[in-house]
Amino acid sequence: MNCSTLGIGLAGFGTVGSGVWNTLARNGHLITSRTGGGITLEVTRILVRDPAKSRATTGEVPAALFTTAWQVLVNDPAVHIVVELIGGTTDAFELVAAALRAKKPVVTGNKALLAERGIELFAISRESNTPIHFEAAVAGGIPIIRTVQDSFIGNRIRSFSGIINGTSNFILGRMTEAALTFEAALAEAQALGYAEADPTLDVNGWDAAHKALLLATLAYGFPIDPAAIHVSGIEQVRPADIAFAKSLGYVLKLLAVVREHANRAVEIRIQPSFVPKSHILASVNGVFNAVAVHGDTAGESLFYGRGAGQDPTASSVVADLVEAARALRHTGDHRGFLPYADSGTLVPVGETSTAYYVRFDVTDRPGVIAEIARLLADHRIGISGTHSPVNPDNPDADFVDMIFLLHTCPFGKLQAALTEIEALDCVNSTPVVFRIEALT
Amino acid sequence: MNCSTLGIGLAGFGTVGSGVWNTLARNGHLITSRTGGGITLEVTRILVRDPAKSRATTGEVPAALFTTAWQVLVNDPAVHIVVELIGGTTDAFELVAAALRAKKPVVTGNKALLAERGIELFAISRESNTPIHFEAAVAGGIPIIRTVQDSFIGNRIRSFSGIINGTSNFILGRMTEAALTFEAALAEAQALGYAEADPTLDVNGWDAAHKALLLATLAYGFPIDPAAIHVSGIEQVRPADIAFAKSLGYVLKLLAVVREHANRAVEIRIQPSFVPKSHILASVNGVFNAVAVHGDTAGESLFYGRGAGQDPTASSVVADLVEAARALRHTGDHRGFLPYADSGTLVPVGETSTAYYVRFDVTDRPGVIAEIARLLADHRIGISGTHSPVNPDNPDADFVDMIFLLHTCPFGKLQAALTEIEALDCVNSTPVVFRIEALT
Repeated sequence: MNCSTLGIGLAGFGTVGSGVWNTLARNGHLITSRTGGGITLEVTRILVRDPAKSRATTGEVPAALFTTAWQVLVNDPAVHIVVELIGGTTDAFELVAAALRAKKPVVTGNKALLAERGIELFAISRESNTPIHFEAAVAGGIPIIRTVQDSFIGNRIRSFSGIINGTSNFILGRMTEAALTFEAALAEAQALGYAEADPTLDVNGWDAAHKALLLATLAYGFPIDPAAIHVSGIEQVRPADIAFAKSLGYVLKLLAVVREHANRAVEIRIQPSFVPKSHILASVNGVFNAVAVHGDTAGESLFYGRGAGQDPTASSVVADLVEAARALRHTGDHRGFLPYADSGTLVPVGETSTAYYVRFDVTDRPGVIAEIARLLADHRIGISGTHSPVNPDNPDADFVDMIFLLHTCPFGKLQAALTEIEALDCVNSTPVVFRIEALT
Repeated sequence: MNCSTLGIGLAGFGTVGSGVWNTLARNGHLITSRTGGGITLEVTRILVRDPAKSRATTGEVPAALFTTAWQVLVNDPAVHIVVELIGGTTDAFELVAAALRAKKPVVTGNKALLAERGIELFAISRESNTPIHFEAAVAGGIPIIRTVQDSFIGNRIRSFSGIINGTSNFILGRMTEAALTFEAALAEAQALGYAEADPTLDVNGWDAAHKALLLATLAYGFPIDPAAIHVSGIEQVRPADIAFAKSLGYVLKLLAVVREHANRAVEIRIQPSFVPKSHILASVNGVFNAVAVHGDTAGESLFYGRGAGQDPTASSVVADLVEAARALRHTGDHRGFLPYADSGTLVPVGETSTAYYVRFDVTDRPGVIAEIARLLADHRIGISGTHSPVNPDNPDADFVDMIFLLHTCPFGKLQAALTEIEALDCVNSTPVVFRIEALT
């Protein structure tokens, strides 16, 4: 194949799809120049639900491009590369699988699809020798996928620490700046368009978990079962937790941590975490994303940028389109990711160790601290501090928050102790646990 | 060419060269796995001055690999890719040109060579259809070259703002933390191995200028004459300047700024600059580097990491080796940079505008502020503040520092005013000017 114009099938024409259209309309000539005149990209088919809907795009989209059947797009001989932007894991799976089998490279930003069904899709990619590119699936406009895959190819990756969900970072930021409750900050995010009507996956940590899984798959090369990842979201964070973190020199962030242990075992967890204020991750505010990477050769680095939005995501899709186009012009150069390691295991969350912040909801009576402290001591868990914030609205309340800061220990040991503590009469609900990260 | 093992000729075996050897020895099997078994890299020749010198490497280097003649390395049929690490712009030029003419891709970290003689070398690269890769030339282990070239290929680059000289950033950091003089901080950097015996290019801004020129060449595609860049270093910075910056909420950094103006005109300048403390660049400490990039599609991003050192630089060289190896296996896929725009101009420094910090060395007598202020007013330059720090060691000194903070105006206008001010009787030496950057 040696034509200089390559046809793009855009499956999905919402925010990101029309961002891709606009970017190609605005900067397509730059791409052609920068590839030495080698590559011109032209959208030749667009899959939409309703062709009659009016759309605001850079330059008018010819009505003849629209189709409502994905099979028409995939089978169109004028479509050489397929961009999957319809979301979900069922139709999107069929569409991507069919495109790969037709030897049409796929560009997608669908992190749920790859996290849940990547094993199947990468197998089809290998069989058909046709790549899947997914820069847009992790951290929007930040080129972290290509960085790990190509720029750090000579590195054993020691760890990732990432703020990779802009919605939850915005919410935590507003709770920090304006002492808003979680509910009020979420409502603000929704009003500004930073959170969807159903924000579940953003606030419960699973969106970040899908992205962390993809980073780990890239770095360690073996298939990972999402069900085995420990995920906890930001729904239980209160302004008091954030204020307390601040008083100790920390900022509270929803952190995705991926870390290599011995014997090809990998730790992956997503949890609200205390990040030292001096660490560069603590400066990542608003809807921005950042991923800190520690490679054995490159050392520490950090990649920061817009984690979502029309244009940043389109920027990553377009970069992948150029990569796919280059490969199409040089048959056999499969530069997409393929799992390269047969085996590897996840470290059970019980065996992962950090220090902890634990908030107990207790009945205020003498002896409460003693009882909790005794059970922690029974489990040989060290206490570095305790604190009970006075509720200024109700200083004589019977039910109060009691905070314990605990030394580093395996999470499983902490869970065992907390199960016993939760059974105490004076403890009224399941304790809330955040991590205290010793980022270097 | 379809052999799976590619021979590497390492021209230069100092810090970075032995870092490349060590990385391939340690992680070569990872590279082979991650390229689907496609690529194995083997060092087949090493150019050294003294083959008998003892060296500490991971695994012993067979003596048969050493040669003292670069022609032997370039012409060796077992060398498929040449890594230039000898430095300088004369022998290195001959070596790189000969390798390209022999159709052997070149990987180099030699920013001076590319900044001074890139126009000639890229022409040879084009004629011989053989790429030059230079990730290691800018910001050590940070993959900024590939990011601009590939990941942001669909972006018009609005600007770069970079801290791209680790030595000067370390020196400014020590002057900030410990109130050291420039000379004392430089001596500390030399003692720690962060500054060379001759630190000229690091502290006078020219090392950063070479890197900024390469970033601008990548982003705008036209050849740039280094002599046309405005460069000013950190030699004139005093602890008092830093303290004053701090009192206003700024951090003093040696900043490289590249910015696109209308009509393919590009601003490039390197100067000590006040950076707002809240900007993420202000958190870049020690020998770390960072480059903030503003693309019209990706929006704002920042890339942070180790800007120098054996392993980080080796990480970038090895990534380029894999890129070169992939291209060698797929004839015709020239993925190295080639200038792609015929024309473009630099914005004369006199037409670049920021706010300014100006320090005058004046004779302390009534009327000094009035005289300086009148000349600034004559040139219609607004003053936002003046300050004369009292010298606690000598409160009655005749010669004092007088600081003026000036509103945004073209640098040329300021220079015209300063020429007249310098001619005043009460002004004893050439005023010192730093920029105040309005980073967003």
